[in-house]
Amino acid sequence: MKVLGIDPGTATTGFGVVEGRPGRASLIDYGTIRTPAGRDMAWRLLEIHKQLDELIQKYQPAAMAVEEIFFHRNAKTVISVGQARGVILMTGARRGIEVYEYTPLQVKQAVVGYGKAEKKQVQIMVKALLQMKDIPRPDDAADALAVAICYLHSARIEALKGRTSL
Amino acid sequence: MKVLGIDPGTATTGFGVVEGRPGRASLIDYGTIRTPAGRDMAWRLLEIHKQLDELIQKYQPAAMAVEEIFFHRNAKTVISVGQARGVILMTGARRGIEVYEYTPLQVKQAVVGYGKAEKKQVQIMVKALLQMKDIPRPDDAADALAVAICYLHSARIEALKGRTSL
Repeated sequence: MKVLGIDPGTATTGFGVVEGRPGRASLIDYGTIRTPAGRDMAWRLLEIHKQLDELIQKYQPAAMAVEEIFFHRNAKTVISVGQARGVILMTGARRGIEVYEYTPLQVKQAVVGYGKAEKKQVQIMVKALLQMKDIPRPDDAADALAVAICYLHSARIEALKGRTSL
Repeated sequence: MKVLGIDPGTATTGFGVVEGRPGRASLIDYGTIRTPAGRDMAWRLLEIHKQLDELIQKYQPAAMAVEEIFFHRNAKTVISVGQARGVILMTGARRGIEVYEYTPLQVKQAVVGYGKAEKKQVQIMVKALLQMKDIPRPDDAADALAVAICYLHSARIEALKGRTSL
């Protein structure tokens, strides 16, 4: 199954497409959706919707995993990321995809095994788990791949739980 | 011309449709889009998108006026309102409608003539300006009508400015 990981933002939304059995992932694609700062907000949000919708149509993921918002000190940033995030969640639901949300702590826990891991450690693990030659760039794309891996990890735990209860 | 005013929220989004020459408004419809707290966020945001899209199709407004987020103390509320707001702005842009954003201060200034007016004063003015028998309920719908009136007021100022510069 394919999972589409998303790290939301108005200027830059990171995405990562990963395929795999739970716990064993392989890389399909990653990158960013960018919108120009000069345009008005409604237009930029529509652009995120359109480009994300194209990715969904192209890769037909079974699930979408979206990072929850880190509480920035700046309320303006929180609103801006929240707006992009709303559009992203809705775009997934509109295509009938299961949408999952994970906190940064859950992502770090799943990828590195330690909830307070540094960004760099997460990136090194993403590179290793997906057998990439280099650390994925930019950070938004690396974060999106990490949240996709987090979904597969969680799905594996759920599957193991299911087996245990049989 | 018709304008659709919106007061965004995840549980309750207020809407108000007003028609008028700039500065002279008449009421067409108002109410709320509600989503149940028990459902997951992506589903609720899709529901807001669908219901708002129906309103746009029904009334074919020339412009949409959306209230900017009041900085609640609670960061969770800011994120939740931000997500709904993102979906709302994008839904308007998707239908090719001009989307305008106003701060609570601008709305109060336009409706009451005083930026620090109380909520009650705004509601009394909305009732008077739209020649309604009662104050519109609930508050979210009254707020949405106020932001629609704010748009018409701003459009009138712009028109007057235009005339002056001729």
